[in-house]
This record gives sequence, structure tokens and C-alpha cells, in this order.
Amino acid sequence: MAEIKVMQSVLASNDSLAARQLAELDKHGVLGINIMAGPGAGKTALVERTADALAGRFRIHVIEGDLHGDLDARRVAAHGVPCTQVNTEGGCHLDSMMMGAVWPDLDLANLDLVIIENVGNLVCPAEFRMPVHHNVTMLSTPEGSDKPSKYPLAFSRSDVVVVNKIDLLPYVDVDLAELRRAVAKLRPDIPVLELSARTGAGVDAWLGWLEGRLVGRRGTRDA
Amino acid sequence: MAEIKVMQSVLASNDSLAARQLAELDKHGVLGINIMAGPGAGKTALVERTADALAGRFRIHVIEGDLHGDLDARRVAAHGVPCTQVNTEGGCHLDSMMMGAVWPDLDLANLDLVIIENVGNLVCPAEFRMPVHHNVTMLSTPEGSDKPSKYPLAFSRSDVVVVNKIDLLPYVDVDLAELRRAVAKLRPDIPVLELSARTGAGVDAWLGWLEGRLVGRRGTRDA
Repeated sequence: MAEIKVMQSVLASNDSLAARQLAELDKHGVLGINIMAGPGAGKTALVERTADALAGRFRIHVIEGDLHGDLDARRVAAHGVPCTQVNTEGGCHLDSMMMGAVWPDLDLANLDLVIIENVGNLVCPAEFRMPVHHNVTMLSTPEGSDKPSKYPLAFSRSDVVVVNKIDLLPYVDVDLAELRRAVAKLRPDIPVLELSARTGAGVDAWLGWLEGRLVGRRGTRDA
Repeated sequence: MAEIKVMQSVLASNDSLAARQLAELDKHGVLGINIMAGPGAGKTALVERTADALAGRFRIHVIEGDLHGDLDARRVAAHGVPCTQVNTEGGCHLDSMMMGAVWPDLDLANLDLVIIENVGNLVCPAEFRMPVHHNVTMLSTPEGSDKPSKYPLAFSRSDVVVVNKIDLLPYVDVDLAELRRAVAKLRPDIPVLELSARTGAGVDAWLGWLEGRLVGRRGTRDA
């Protein structure tokens, strides 16, 4: 029982800190999203596509979570977007305590969107509330249609699911209808967006979803 | 500091239990392997191929680790192999405490090989020593060549790396030479086996590696 109490206390303190950080985003009308996926699902590729598509219209800051190194931050920065790399040094997820080290660096008065790319892991990141308005869970077609059933927490805590690498559909064994049913069992009302961050196919629907939230928030700020 | 001490004590007690469980395998000349990979890399597909290839020559028991459900155990059992499903109920890895619930069910006197398929996660499983002789880390070509650098612990604690889904090579952006260099930086002396569990291409080299260890162990037992 002691162990459970400690974990609950960690989660509760994480959640209350995340709520305070989210309030800072809200004060400035900034939208926050947290992208979760297993390794190699294409999170960074989607961030790169998104940065290019929104350039000149929305101001973005990207936070990259990785165990080690700055490979992803360098990829994103090459698109002209401010990017902060957070290294967990072996840790399996980001949390709001780590965001506490990043938040003071965010130029919130001059931002529209904060994108957090979590550690490549479909399990642990979902347990820790992040200072964002929406969680996004990605998976890629080669991973198969059983992932929502096997990793339900990430999907059930997300407001949109992105199925990446549809350019590989002719070559992999995945049943998209089954995948959609598996998501619907957990969250019947959320969109499942099929796209290829590599080719750009289907990315418009993702941008449409994201820009809808951005414009809504800008409305709040300007009001 | 308190937190670190607790974690070290958990790991130490996990390790000593794993060592005792491994000694039971050794007493019966049974080989144990632990397969680690991210979600959808093809661990279960490799286990299915392996079960078919070794049928009639080596006696196998498979332990399937998943957060929820028994999808993978049912897939493996369909190949006529005894299989035990372990559900972590949200936990991100297997450990030797969980194996403690399985070990009494293993018919060690009538087994040659225990295959443990860990939870789909490239981070946490590597932290917990399992009662096996060899760790095997898998990744699949769509995941990209940067995974060993980003998830070094799993690779540095493995004796063989399996690169699955080479049937997708014409359609994905992966640099196998770079991938091999990334593995070699962590473990210069271990084999990197490229294969497709789906088509069977390259699986012979994997079976050769595994049978080499099995025959060596049978020799120990019969001596």
C-alpha cells in the first residue's frame, strides 16, 4: 500500500503542476498539444510537416523529449522553429516537473502553439498529465491494428488519433477498419486521421483539426 | 536520495530473484531468451516463425508479456506451443517477480527453450534483468536507423539485434549501414540479423544463432 500511496502522490503533484503550467498557456491564448507514440511511429516527421505548413501563420515552440541526444531537436530546428530538447536520461516519459525547467524559456506572449513530442513509448507517457489542451496518440500502419487494445491508456486519454505511414498500406498487414473499431471502443467520439507524414497524403485533415483548435484559441485571446 | 535507494533496492531484489530462476533453467539445461522491442516491431511474428521452425526438434514454452489481453498468447498457442500470458495491468515491463508466478508452471524437465516476449517498449524492459541467458533486441525497418542511439540501454544489454521487416526496405527511409554503426557503438561484437518474420527472408540466420545456443546447452545437460 505504501508504494501505491507514493505513486499517487507523485501523480497528484504532477497533475497540479501541469494545471498551473496550462493556466499560463491559457493566459496568453496559447494552444498546447502533447504527441505520444511508440518509437519510430513518425512523431518528429509530423512535427516537421506541421511546422512547415503553419509557418508564417502561427508561431510555434516545439519541446522534444528523448532519453538521450538531440537528434530530433536538430531536425525540427532545421525548419526554423524554436525547439527545446529535454533529455530524460533513461526516463520513460515526460512530466510536468520536466516542463517546469522549460516553461520559463517559452516566449508565451509571442506564441500560438506549443507542441510537446513525448518520449517514444506507448505506455508510460500516458500516465503523466502534461500542460496541454489535447493529447494526440499516433501509431503507424506497420505496427498493426491491435495497438489500441494493447495500449489502451494512451488512446483513451487522447482527443485525436493519427495513423501514420499510410503510404505503406499496400505492403503491410493492417486492418484499418479493425483499428478504427479498437479506437472507438475506447473513445467513440474522437477522429482517427490516416496520413503519411512522409508523402504528405492526408496531412490536410490533421492540419484542419489543429488549425480549428488554434483559431478557436486565438479567438479567446483576442476577445 | 531516498527515491534512488528505493529504486536500487527494487532492482537488486529483481536481479537476485532472476539469478535464482535462471539457475533452475540451468539445472535442466534449458535455454532462456528475452525479446525486447517497441510496439509492433514484430516480436510475436518472430516467435511464431521460431516455433514452427523448431517444432519436433526442440521443446519450447513461450511467456507473453502484455499490459492487457491475451492476443499474442492466442497467436502463439495456435502454433501448438505451450504459452503463458502475463498481464502487467498497465505496467511497462516484465520483471523476475512476475516470472515468479510463471516459473512453477514450466515443465523444465521436458523443455529446451523458454522464450519471453517482453512488453512492447524499448525503454523500461531493459532496466529489469530477466531469468534468461540472452537478451534479444528487435527493431523494424520503418522505425528508422536512429533507434539504437535513442534507446541505448536495450541494445547495450543484448547479445543479438534483430532488424525485422526487411521486406519493407524499398518503401522506407532507413540506412542499414548507419543502423549497424549505431549498434556497433554500443556493442561492437554482437550480430545484427536482418530478416522478415513475415516473408521468412533472413530467418535462417536467426535460427542458426538460436540453435547454436540450444545445441551448446543440450550438450551441457547431457554431459
